[in-house]
Amino acid sequence: MELEIEQYLHRHIPLSAAMGVHVRVATPERVELAAPLAPNVNHHETLFGGSGAAIATLSAWTLVNLKLRHAKVRARLVIQRNAMSYDEPIEGDFTALCEQPEESLWQRFLTMIERRGRGRITMTARLFYRSRPAASFEGDFVALREQ
Amino acid sequence: MELEIEQYLHRHIPLSAAMGVHVRVATPERVELAAPLAPNVNHHETLFGGSGAAIATLSAWTLVNLKLRHAKVRARLVIQRNAMSYDEPIEGDFTALCEQPEESLWQRFLTMIERRGRGRITMTARLFYRSRPAASFEGDFVALREQ
Repeated sequence: MELEIEQYLHRHIPLSAAMGVHVRVATPERVELAAPLAPNVNHHETLFGGSGAAIATLSAWTLVNLKLRHAKVRARLVIQRNAMSYDEPIEGDFTALCEQPEESLWQRFLTMIERRGRGRITMTARLFYRSRPAASFEGDFVALREQ
Repeated sequence: MELEIEQYLHRHIPLSAAMGVHVRVATPERVELAAPLAPNVNHHETLFGGSGAAIATLSAWTLVNLKLRHAKVRARLVIQRNAMSYDEPIEGDFTALCEQPEESLWQRFLTMIERRGRGRITMTARLFYRSRPAASFEGDFVALREQ
């Protein structure tokens, strides 16, 4: 599953290939992506914030897609808004972790998609450097049901 | 100036080269970056949100750096937090525009850097597709004075 998703990301979202994103874990409960610093570095030899926002977005987007697929819901998923907070400098290879939302929020999301053809869910993700949290992401995703 | 900055970005922030970022305008009043859709596309053939956040971040970061350089302030500039709102799908080549902040906010930023060695400023930027605004960015940047 991980390899399949990694290939999908690299093929359809080419920035993920340029960033060297590796899919370490991809289940409907948890998505963990890893990336090397080199292609994502800034002029201070730390992680470029734009790369951080991009990989966090990918982790959350992948998790919601996996959960939708698991629930046999066909939907087009787009990001509507996101916020990123950079707490510690990231000076080497790093990971992005997104875990499934609370079950009640997820069920409400599925119900909205079923009833109205459209649902919105807020997802969170974190970046880790040397196993310590270094940045946090929050994003609203909208799913539009497809027939 | 534009070419110099484009080369600087491509060399020191390699993701900007992978994204095909072209510096169209770079003055202390206005920074406009352009990028093609192809390296920044998602699986829906529209702009990947992560790319949008990255180029908006670059436009604001470049403008603050140019204004600091213009004011002869040597400072290390890092992003602390940012928020992005995606309002319209971007289906082709696009631009990011950052304009200088209100003069009073800028002066306060410079004063803080001078007095405390550290200042924070909130910057906004927008993405345009076919000359229409399509996404908006807001980010807090912190400047740490260098000797």
